[in-house]
This record gives sequence, C-alpha cells and structure tokens, in this order.
Amino acid sequence: MDARREPRNHQRKRRDGEHHDGDQTLTFVPGPLGPDGLKRIDAYWRAANYLSVGQIYLMANPLLHAPLKPEHVKPRLLGHWGTTPGLNFIYAHLNRVIRERDLNMVAVWGPGHGAPGLVANAYLEGTYGEIYPDVAQDLDGMARLFRQFSFPGGIPNHASPELPGSIHEGGELGYSLAHAFGAALDNPGLTVACVVGDGEAETGPLAAAWHSNKFLDARHDGTVLPILHLNGYKIANPTILARMPPEELWSLLVGYGYEPTFVEGDEPAVMHQAMATALDSAFDAIAEIRKHAVHGATQRPRWPMIVLRSPKGWMGPETVDGKPVEGTWRAHQVPVAAVRESPEHRAVLEAWMRSYRPEELFAEDGSLAPDLAALPPKGPRRLSANPHANAHKSASLRLPDLRRFAVAVPEPGRTKAEATRALGAFLRDVLTLNAEARNVRIMGPDETASNRLDAVFEVTDRAWQEEILPGDDHLARDGRVMEVLSEHLCEGWLEGYVLTGRHGLFATYEAFVHVVDSMVNQHAKWLKSSRDLPWRRPVPSLNILLSSHVWRQDHNGFSHQDPGFIDFVANKRGDTARIYLPPDANTLLCVTDHCLRTYDRINVVVAGKQPALQWLGPDEAARHCAAGAGIWDWASNEGEAEPDVVMACAGDVPTQEMLAAVDWLRHHVPDLRVRVVNVVDLMTLPARETHPHGLDDPTFDSLFTRDRPVVFAYHGYPWLIHRLTYKRTNHGNFHVHGFIEEGTTTTPFDMCVLNRLDRLHLAQAALRAVPGLGAHAEHAEQALRAALARHREHVRRTGDDLPEVRDWAWPERHVHEHPDRRIEGDIMQCGPADAGRGGAGRARPSMTGRSSPEAGR
Amino acid sequence: MDARREPRNHQRKRRDGEHHDGDQTLTFVPGPLGPDGLKRIDAYWRAANYLSVGQIYLMANPLLHAPLKPEHVKPRLLGHWGTTPGLNFIYAHLNRVIRERDLNMVAVWGPGHGAPGLVANAYLEGTYGEIYPDVAQDLDGMARLFRQFSFPGGIPNHASPELPGSIHEGGELGYSLAHAFGAALDNPGLTVACVVGDGEAETGPLAAAWHSNKFLDARHDGTVLPILHLNGYKIANPTILARMPPEELWSLLVGYGYEPTFVEGDEPAVMHQAMATALDSAFDAIAEIRKHAVHGATQRPRWPMIVLRSPKGWMGPETVDGKPVEGTWRAHQVPVAAVRESPEHRAVLEAWMRSYRPEELFAEDGSLAPDLAALPPKGPRRLSANPHANAHKSASLRLPDLRRFAVAVPEPGRTKAEATRALGAFLRDVLTLNAEARNVRIMGPDETASNRLDAVFEVTDRAWQEEILPGDDHLARDGRVMEVLSEHLCEGWLEGYVLTGRHGLFATYEAFVHVVDSMVNQHAKWLKSSRDLPWRRPVPSLNILLSSHVWRQDHNGFSHQDPGFIDFVANKRGDTARIYLPPDANTLLCVTDHCLRTYDRINVVVAGKQPALQWLGPDEAARHCAAGAGIWDWASNEGEAEPDVVMACAGDVPTQEMLAAVDWLRHHVPDLRVRVVNVVDLMTLPARETHPHGLDDPTFDSLFTRDRPVVFAYHGYPWLIHRLTYKRTNHGNFHVHGFIEEGTTTTPFDMCVLNRLDRLHLAQAALRAVPGLGAHAEHAEQALRAALARHREHVRRTGDDLPEVRDWAWPERHVHEHPDRRIEGDIMQCGPADAGRGGAGRARPSMTGRSSPEAGR
Repeated sequence: MDARREPRNHQRKRRDGEHHDGDQTLTFVPGPLGPDGLKRIDAYWRAANYLSVGQIYLMANPLLHAPLKPEHVKPRLLGHWGTTPGLNFIYAHLNRVIRERDLNMVAVWGPGHGAPGLVANAYLEGTYGEIYPDVAQDLDGMARLFRQFSFPGGIPNHASPELPGSIHEGGELGYSLAHAFGAALDNPGLTVACVVGDGEAETGPLAAAWHSNKFLDARHDGTVLPILHLNGYKIANPTILARMPPEELWSLLVGYGYEPTFVEGDEPAVMHQAMATALDSAFDAIAEIRKHAVHGATQRPRWPMIVLRSPKGWMGPETVDGKPVEGTWRAHQVPVAAVRESPEHRAVLEAWMRSYRPEELFAEDGSLAPDLAALPPKGPRRLSANPHANAHKSASLRLPDLRRFAVAVPEPGRTKAEATRALGAFLRDVLTLNAEARNVRIMGPDETASNRLDAVFEVTDRAWQEEILPGDDHLARDGRVMEVLSEHLCEGWLEGYVLTGRHGLFATYEAFVHVVDSMVNQHAKWLKSSRDLPWRRPVPSLNILLSSHVWRQDHNGFSHQDPGFIDFVANKRGDTARIYLPPDANTLLCVTDHCLRTYDRINVVVAGKQPALQWLGPDEAARHCAAGAGIWDWASNEGEAEPDVVMACAGDVPTQEMLAAVDWLRHHVPDLRVRVVNVVDLMTLPARETHPHGLDDPTFDSLFTRDRPVVFAYHGYPWLIHRLTYKRTNHGNFHVHGFIEEGTTTTPFDMCVLNRLDRLHLAQAALRAVPGLGAHAEHAEQALRAALARHREHVRRTGDDLPEVRDWAWPERHVHEHPDRRIEGDIMQCGPADAGRGGAGRARPSMTGRSSPEAGR
Repeated sequence: MDARREPRNHQRKRRDGEHHDGDQTLTFVPGPLGPDGLKRIDAYWRAANYLSVGQIYLMANPLLHAPLKPEHVKPRLLGHWGTTPGLNFIYAHLNRVIRERDLNMVAVWGPGHGAPGLVANAYLEGTYGEIYPDVAQDLDGMARLFRQFSFPGGIPNHASPELPGSIHEGGELGYSLAHAFGAALDNPGLTVACVVGDGEAETGPLAAAWHSNKFLDARHDGTVLPILHLNGYKIANPTILARMPPEELWSLLVGYGYEPTFVEGDEPAVMHQAMATALDSAFDAIAEIRKHAVHGATQRPRWPMIVLRSPKGWMGPETVDGKPVEGTWRAHQVPVAAVRESPEHRAVLEAWMRSYRPEELFAEDGSLAPDLAALPPKGPRRLSANPHANAHKSASLRLPDLRRFAVAVPEPGRTKAEATRALGAFLRDVLTLNAEARNVRIMGPDETASNRLDAVFEVTDRAWQEEILPGDDHLARDGRVMEVLSEHLCEGWLEGYVLTGRHGLFATYEAFVHVVDSMVNQHAKWLKSSRDLPWRRPVPSLNILLSSHVWRQDHNGFSHQDPGFIDFVANKRGDTARIYLPPDANTLLCVTDHCLRTYDRINVVVAGKQPALQWLGPDEAARHCAAGAGIWDWASNEGEAEPDVVMACAGDVPTQEMLAAVDWLRHHVPDLRVRVVNVVDLMTLPARETHPHGLDDPTFDSLFTRDRPVVFAYHGYPWLIHRLTYKRTNHGNFHVHGFIEEGTTTTPFDMCVLNRLDRLHLAQAALRAVPGLGAHAEHAEQALRAALARHREHVRRTGDDLPEVRDWAWPERHVHEHPDRRIEGDIMQCGPADAGRGGAGRARPSMTGRSSPEAGR
C-alpha cells in the first residue's frame, strides 16, 4: 500500500431534496489553492457545467432570463451528461497548471460523449468564437452554441474534428492513450494530458497502450500524463476499474509502470484542493524526470499519473422521480427526460441549471464575467488552441533522390530483386535526411527486418526503454523504429504522430491489418471531416505498407491469407483512400516517395519482400507510376491493329503470372495479338466522378479497349475490380482472376494454381475469351492441362515449384525496343496541391518536391 | 515482493561447443518428482522435442537410422523452433497433473508457430494416428508426420483446426485467453489451461482478457489456468513482459487479480521440479477455491496462474556459426539454416537431433518405447482428445414457439413496434427453456438494455464477480448476460463458447463491430477448415446482432456510421456467411429463431431498435423469411401485366422509405405499375453456384423481371448489391440507393435524404428509370423537389422530421386482400441438414425443430 492512495469513499454528504437548489457555495478547505483561487476555479467549473447542460437541453433562452418554457427545450434530448462534469473539472485544473507553469500542453479526451464539456471549454477560452464567429461569447452566440449540439446540421456528441484543440474523436473508444503517446513522440517540450474513461479502459487497445511508456524516451520525447477518470459506470454496468478492489487497481497501474496519485471524493472544495495537489506533485515529478533524462539517466522513469474517482453526473440532479441519479448509471445520458412534456421535470432542469448561478458567471449580454475571462491560459497556450493539435509542425519531409536506390533493370523481367530491400535503403536515407528534424517514424509489429527494410538499422535503432542486454538487436532509447506486437499500438501511435504534423509508415501483415480496420476507418472519417473545416491544417498521410501479403504465405497457411483490407479501404471516400500495387522495386520506390509527400490520405501500398523479377527501370517506373496504369508495349505484340485480348495485371505476383502467361501464349499461339496493361494505382480504374485518380473514359478505353476481352490478374478479391470498373464501357468483357479463399498450406505457385491466378489458367482464360480460335485453342488447352498436372504433382512430391516455373524469366526474344505506350498522368506529381484542400485562409505547409497545378489528386 | 517470486536469472551453465552433443543426461534434484518420475517426464519432453525438430527439418530418414544426407532435408525450411520446447515442456507437465488428479482439461495454446510441438504431442498420445491413420506410430507414419509439416498439401505452422484437441488457431495472436474463458463458462468440471505467449501478451485483446476473471463464476463455471510463457523474444525484439522489471510484472499480474507463481531457469531437472511444484500448488489452490465456491463464497477468488520463464529455443543449438542462438531471438525460426547445402550445418542438426537420444525413445519400427507410451493420459482425458474441444456438448437449444412473441399486424404498415423488444421477450424464454442446460449466453458491450432486449433481465442478470452495490442493475455472479466494453472480449468469449458446443448471441453497434473484423475473419476460416475435416463436429453458429445501425445515429454522427461489416462478411466463403436484414419485428423473430438452430455459420442480423412500422404478421413473416425474398403484393399494383418498375428494398429503414415512395408514386402517378420486392436474406441475391442461398435464375427473374428497371433501397454500401447480382439477367437495370459516407450529425430522415435513400429520391429514381413517362414525370419531379426542400428546411429549423414524414403510415386505401406472392424457399427450414456437412462417421447433434432434406442450406 502507498501513502498516496487515499481512502475510497469519502463521499460528499447527500443533501435532501431532489436536486441541487442553489446551494453550490463553497466552504474553504486548505490546500495549494488560496480562498480566491479556490473560488475562481470552482466558478470556472460551474460555468463549463452550465454551458454543458445548456447544450444538452436548450434551443433558446440560454441564460434563463425568462422562466423555462417547453419551447426553449429541444424536441429530442440526445446528449450525455454522465462524464461531462468530471471532464470540466479536469479541464479547469489543467488550465491552472498550464498558466502557473507556462506549460505547452495538448489534451486527449478519451471518454465517449464528452463533447458538451469540451465544446463549453473551447467556448469559454474564446477559441470557438474565433473559429466559428457566429458562436461568439454573446447571447446569440450562446443560443447557437446550445442549439447546434446534437442537432441536424450541427455537431455530434463526441470530441469530433469540429472541436478546436482535439486530435481524438471520442466516438469509438480505446485509442486515446495511443494517440497521446504518438503526439508526445519527438516533442520533448510538450505535455499530452490524456483522460482515459473507465469504460474505454476496458477495451483491448487501451489496455495495451499503458505499456507505451516502454517506448517513450524521456530525453527526446514529450510527456504523457494519464488521468484515469473513474466515473464508476458505463451505460448500465459498473466499470471494471472502478469496482475492482482498490489495492488491485493500484497494483495494476504500478505494474504498468506508473506512479499513481488518487483523487477521490465528491465534495467540490476538498476535490479541488486534492486535484491541485495531485497536479502540482505530478509536474514536480515530471520536472525531476526531465532533469535526469537530460543528464543521461538510463533507467525508464516511473511517470506519474492521476486517478480521479468522482461521481458520474457529478453535481447534477441527485434524484429524479425518487430514483438516485448522481453517482449512478442513470446519469449516463440525460438525467431528466421528457422536459418539454413534464412541468415537474422542467422545474428540475431549471433548478439544476440555476444551481450553477449563471448570473455570477455571465453578464446580461452573454459575455463572460471578467474574473472568469481572466482564468484560462492565453493564445496558443489554450488547450483549444495549441498549435500541436492542428499539425503546426507539418513541414514536409526532405526526401533523397530516388535514382540512388533504383534497381538496375537492363532488360524487363530477366533479373530478380527484393522490392522492400530497395525501399529499406531509401527509408534509411529518409531517416538520415530528417534526423535533425526528428519528424518521421516507422512502426510495425516486429517485422522491419523480416520485411527486409533492415537498412534503416544502419542509421537508427528500435525504440526501447527497458534494460538492453548483450546480443539485443539494434535497441536504443531514441530509436526511430517502433516495434510492438500490437497493430493497435502501431496504428494508434502513428495516428497521434501524423495528427500532430509528423510523418510515418506502418508496415504490417496484409492478413492481420484487419486488426485495425476500425481504427483506420475512424481515421478516414476524421480526415474526411477535417477537410471540410478550412481552419484545420492538412496532416501528413497515414502510410500503410503491406509486405507479407496474401500470395506469400508459404508455411503460414490459411489464417495468414486475406487481401480484404483493400476492399475495406476502397469503401472509404474517394478523396481519402489510395491503394497502390507496385509490381516491382522501382515502382515501389516511386509510390512510397509519392506517399511520403502527400497529406490527408490513407495510402495503402502492397508489395512483397521476396526476390522477384523486375520489370521497369527507374525512368519507366516513374512514368508508369505517374500515369497510374499503362500499356507495357515491350510485352505486347498487338502491332498496329487492336489487340485480340488485353492481359491486365495489378500486384507483384499477378504481374509475374500474367507476364508468364503472355510468354506462353506468344509461344503457343503466335498469331494472337496480345496487349499487356499494368495497373499500379488501383484508383485509376473507377470513373473520375467517383475517385479523383479515376482515368477519364477515353483514356481508360485507350488502355482496355471498348470491346476486346480483358483477362485481369488481380492481387485481391476479384469482385473489387468489377466494382471499380462497373461504369466503364468494356466492363462486361472483364474476366478477373484474383484471390478466392481456398484454405491450405501451399507454395506460392501452388496457391496461385488453386486460385486460378497462375500463368496457365490465365493463358487458358485468354484462349477461351477470344472468339474464333477454334481447334487452335483446343490444342493449346490440352498442353496447358498437361503442364498443370505435371506441375502440381511435382509440388506435392518435392515441396518446390518445377524448375521451369520457379526460374521462369521473360524471354530475351520478346524484349522489344519500343518503350511502353504512355498515357497522360501525373498522379505522382504531388506537391502542395496534393494536400488536396484549398479554402481561403487555409495555411498550407511549405513543401519541397515537384508540384502540380492539379488540385485534389 | 512475494516469496514465490524466484530470482530471475539462475541460468543453466553454458556448455562449451556449438551444440548439445548427447550429454542431455539428468542429475536428480529433489522435488515432487521422484527419480523415476523425473527421468520419465524428461524423456517424454525429449521425445516431443525430437519429433518437433524432425517436422521442421526432415522429409525422410526420420529416426536417423542412416547418417543425415541432403536429400533427407526439406528443400524449404519453414518452421519455427523458438516457442516449441517450452510448449512441449508445459504439455508434458499438464499430462502429469491430468493423470495424477484425473483432471478434465482442455488446453489453449496461444503462441504462434507452435504447431510442431503440439502436433508432436498429439502424435505421442496416439490421437493423431487415430484420426489420420497414415500418420501412425510407425516409421512410415513418422516420415509422413515430418513431411506434411509446412509442406504443400500438408498442415500449417500453427495450431490449426487440423490439430486434434485444439479450439484455437495460433496464427493471428491475441485471443487465447478470451477463448479459454469462453470455453470454461458453464463447464464447472473443466479446467482450461491457457498458454499465453509473451509476444501475444503485447496485443490489446490479450491485455484486456486478463480481466475476464471478473466475469467467471467459480461455482457454475470452469477454471482457467493461465500459463504466461516468457520466451524473452518476439521475431527480433525482446518482449515487454519478459524484459520489464520483475517486480512490475508481479504487480501487473496481481493487479489483474491473479496469484502468480514463477517458474524460471533453464536447467531441466530444476525446472521439471519447479514446474511440478507450481502445478501442484495451483491445483491445490483451485480445489480450495471450488470448495469455497460450492459453499457460497461471495468474493471473487484470486485464481492461480503460472509464469514460465525459459530460454527461447530451449535445448536447441546454443551457438551456430559462432553466434548465440539458444535463448536469443535467433532461435525464433530455424536455428540452423541451409542444412541441405552446408555439411557443417547438417552436422549441427544431426548432433542436435541425436542429443535427444531417439534410440531410447522409439523402437526400430518407430513405435514408442513402452515407458513413454504409458505416460500420457488415456482416452478422452488426453489433451488432444478431450471431447469439449470437439463440441461434444453441441445439443441443440430448446426454442419456444415463435408465435407467442409475434407482434400483431392487423394491417401492413399501420402500427409501430420495436423489433428488438419483441426479440428480447423471445430471448428471455430461450434463456428460461435452457436454464438447466446452461448452454446459451448473450454477450455485448453494455447495450443489452439499450438495445431493448431487457426482457432477458426478468429471468437472468449480468455476470459480475466484483462487489455488487445497492442500485446496481441486475448484476449477479451467475448472470447469463456478459457485458464488457470490449468487442474483442465479447467476440472471443462467444467464440470459445460456441467452439465448445454451446450457443450464443453477440449484440453490438454496427459501426464498431469492425473492431472484431479480424476475429470474425479468423473464426470464419476456422469454420471453413473444420468443415473439410470429417472428424470435427459442427459447432453452433456465431450469431451477431447489429441493432444500433447506420441509419439510427441521430446524435452520434459520422463516427458511428458504417455499414461495411456486411461487405466484410460477404467476402467470406458462401458456406459460412449469412446476412439477414429483417424489415420488422416478426421477421426479426423468424430470422433469429433460425440462426439459433444453425451450426457452423456466421450469422449477421441487422435490425433497429426504434419504434417502426410493422409490415408482416407472423404467418407472412415465416413464409417471407423461408423464401428469403418475395414480392409484397399488398403493396404492389402491377395487376396481371409485368410491372413498369420494381421497387426493391432490404433493411428496416430502407423498407420504410421504399414503401413511402411507393405510396407517393401510386398517389401521384397512378398509372405506373409498381412491384414491391423485399429481401430479408441478402444471400438470395447472388447466383446459386456462388452461395447456397442464392435463388435459381428463373426464380430471381420472377421477382426482379428480366428487363424492367429495379430501384433498390439497401441498408449498406450500394455496390454490394451490384456485386451480388452481377451475374443476373437484369443486372444492368439495377439502380441501388444505399449508404454513402456523408459525415454529419442528422436525424434519421435527414441522413436518408443526404444519402438519397429517402422516399422522395426513391420515387424520383423510379420516375427517371421508367421510359416514356414524359411530362408526367417532370411534373411529379417538381412536386418532389418542393417537398424535399420544405422538409430539409423544417429539419434544420426544428430538429425533427416534418409530421407528415415522421407519422407517415401505409395508407388504408392500398391495403389489398390478396397475400404476398410466394416463391419457393425453405431457407428457414433448418433442421440437422443445416449443420451443412455430412461425411460418413460424422457425429451429428440431435436437433429439435423442423428439418429439411436439403443439405448445405
């Protein structure tokens, strides 16, 4: 047991009566706050609470200048009171320490439905009115503030992008602490206060995130101050952390590596002094830690944290209709309902609101009482205006010249390389060029080396604050690679990092990236909403590299096979999602270089790590990627006429199989006129009105023809190609071969065979799709079937592909002179315009690199 | 500090030389194992280790009767050694306590890549050979055992369904502990040993799952014995739990509510005695807890757990090529590579394998030495043969007569009801009828009451083992409703529960069910693979109810809007996924009743909880659901001729909007011949060869016509309807209105408007789709636009729908006499055949209820 652990239940004595009735006066108790200070902080808290209740209930008569009437009350009461007074309490006290210590602080508010309180505070700080001038600190503004909340066309019930100072949506729960740590990385002067709700604390991602302190370098990173807010209840249930024995909670938090201070109770004066004491000692401890860190302390510090245990719906109605509300699960949403309909309930609401004594807090005209206005921090020190929460650091990355990392491709398809190994060298130099800026990180579940990106370890290490033992591989306190076996943490850290304006890449397994479907989803929604807000600065894109992909799961088998993340991302709005399938090393370099230049995107790149045939030299790769898709003339034999068949491919394994199929066809059916089309940017396929990368129809038709059969070898589930090309003229002639769940342990080629994505099936598909080949095709099919049978037998017997399959290369005889036929395109030309949002008055980061006049690409 | 916490690093003294060379003899140390017992358990461990190494490396010469040659070694070495010896060690010791105490035990193996060890143990127990007769305990069988591992057509590297005794795939990490708790629920006689890898322990779902002890009733549920296996390293990194200060680890586990015993070291004799001591005291403690529980102990017990800290790759090569391997991250995969190519490496492997002294363990013919054969438990006590791990309890549920819960629908579309409230009453009676069997549970993140299923609390409570305070709402130790704010836990518990043969329902938010995308994905893969194994018994379906759905997020806004889970599930194989969109209460009852009768499925049901118009009486609902889709004649006016337009709908809100659109059309364009089609079972739409529920083409055409325009109002992303109907004759004429991300806070109707899924846009779509309406249509469109503008203005101003929109009902004048036109169908006729897999020798659960001769439905 620890002296700091206060007893659990020194509850405020319950008053009689059904609600608070104006007796919210404060008796002074001693502590760090003097009598005036105590009074002022309590007044500020009351003001925030008043404004919160107003938002939940009222659509007119904001300061109750008139007695409350039904028409002042919203027809549908959709807010949540429960967590709000606690958040307001924390906010007021954070304001005090920011001011007194001149702290640079951002706050992450984890609890769901916290918007009324947080919006109230942004309003009190003046930020809200600065950004939304019609919600100013006057009577009209207050009326609008109240009305807009949970109202059609208004703002939602969570700390959404519309809330200034927020980098975290309180809708889906679980990610606050990971976001907070992500924001603190590489920001040594910054404190990120992170309020964790006890509901949220039950989620897995949050439970894992406590361990983020094992990765935060006290010297080069900022501070995260977790404030665990124990309200006691979720919707209808007690919470685990609030109800478990207090000594176990203490043990748990100590086990997570923190030094907790408990602030528990419900008597405001006592609680104000306890909270002020706790924050003072926390920041004293933090100052000590920082001092030691600068002097090279090598042990991970035990960071302080605060546990605030306060009643749910604190200082709201104690009872309604004879049932207890304050301190129970009944305080979760609207503590008193049917206010329009019931005069009794209306009286409860009115008495409740008047118990905050609004006349002391606001002038007749709705402006703040001078005492109150003086309280919050000023300018960028305000939690609602800290520039870190609006990506003020979003300087673009310095990027090296791509050519230096290019793989030499003297002839297409005749040499092998590991695409991600080339990328690793590029990323190494990205880290070097930006070493001083400290504004780029690589995250992943322990696969950086296994993904062959290990060149980065020539210039940095893996971040690690625990003991480092001899034989450990590239661990260091200030490593820029973050590896933890939790996709949730990797994704959450990176989100926090990019939302505060820095850059990064998350490399992970294609099958298991589904673990973070929901997080990526919420991030996409955040970006989408942010783009509609001219005052929100662009944030660097979230870059996801999937390199242990579905076609390369030799031994792992079925559980590791799933290309569905692409489908998931493709459901997101066109201006957010990007999906790239580079066929080889040089295209992977181009694509990644591009992604690292973009803002406000979710870029998904799928590229294998195994040695594989290389198709395009650096120049061809740049042109091909810029266009997003193109004809590979060197592989085609259509000549001047229209081709008999288009052989299209997207993805590295499908490209290899398709080229081998074309080789087979050109050998066995030399008269067949074949065109090869490769697609790097999947979003060239849909119509331009659907996605800004979509090719215009004439260009699309110039690649895929208007009427010829198209055999399409695709990396993922085949129907996505049908969906994306749905509105194209030639859509009805597409024959897509992709991944179908078969569920087995296989070698790569064998898996292709099972999915009919292998060279022989693709050749067969072409023969069947082209009309009029007759006996010729039949003959060829017989040869195909025999080859297939021979190969499968060999694989099953030896565990390896047939040599002629394994060692196949694009034959020298097909290598033409003429370059690939270009289509116009500049998707990879991605200067500032790629930030993709204009808007007058919008600050744009200055970016190096090429630029393009085309907005929205 | 605790006396049981042993010092961390009493490492075995390193021997000289690069590998173990036959000196694995044991010096006796005192402990619960006598000299013979110690020797025997060590021999068993060596045997399992030998067989594990053999699987990773060899394809011939299994007992090294000949010197090791290149051709004996697999061409591609794809196994993982690191975790294996530790798992084998635990397995051997679990065998001892099972035998000595006659325990009924299932084991869940969390660490990834553990298959070589677990398969080796199933082989040693004889179960493997019983199930796969060509992998028997002889020389041929051993050769096959070795060869099949990580080999084309063989078995994967994880504890997949092919492994007898397993209910948990070790591929994607994080779910072992939740599965273990799910398996233990309602099995008071069962112990579930759960080995948690220290890599896996970094994941969020696993971190949250420790708290499952707050929900496990010591009296009515079984025991979970967590064994945290600290190997020290993941792929290239140390693990958090292995490297954090030991006192913090102790504090963490105590904080999670456990009583940990630490078994640490690497000297086999010492470790055997320590592990035996730890298991003995754990099971003594468990016996005490159970005794107290039976006598009504009211405090949550502190369950024992074991922490095993042993070197990664324990007893494998200590060094290879001069680099340390045993006890480092280098032991993760194959400790010695290129064995075919390098004689030196081959010598390392051979010496390593011979160090286990196979000649003592196996006879010349490959059979087990008699001493060894006597060691494991017998028959169903074997971990690889425990019937709980093969759903032996999969008795069907007793289900009440649906009619008793039916909502009266005197006329379609003129009365309102809350669909989920009717379902709650049904579920209440399901719980009552099966109260004695204790074989059904409801899981959810604290939304059972909010989803209006609260009738269940008339007969049960929420499971809760912490203190229960006055005012708490329906908490009890043995509650059958499990609520925790972690979708991962809900899903994981339910998976463990159904995989051991029991039934359940997981009710959650539509938007946030994406949190468990990856878990559902893996469960679907498990089911798919299991269906291919005739010896695996069917398991009750995983039923997911999404009732806070995308169209009902009044105040929550954009973060709560996402219907993409349907798309995700629709990517799964046809024989696993089912998606139901019941339009009202009676159809929801039919669908749920059906789902609870099925096996081996993932059933997704989407149905709102708000008061809504009711369309079908109980008889019509049963018929409609049995067909899966049908014409609603009472709403149509096509008469004898073909209709001008088909107005199709799927989902409750879309159905309401579509019917209102039809009302509008019939009023304003009375000559238009309209047919209304409603789809309950989304999987009626694809072709039958794609999905067993797919309608045959003539039936599909009889609903949707071959050439008339179809306006389709759909619950989710519209393109899924296009994809599902892709191969249908009339596909080109489908105009689908569904959810498009718009991102706003809205009332339901307003959101429909933004998505053009509202009645007015649907009517407009019909007018535009039907050719030749001319001026008529133009006129109607003008009226539509005016109505729309009026409504939007009203919503923005008042926060509510226009009364005529809000209170719209199907007008009496349209109510015809004739019943809906039936199509043939018996999707809801779901007796034993619905288990969907025959296979000779396959045990089938006896099921009550209707039956159908049609398999695979």
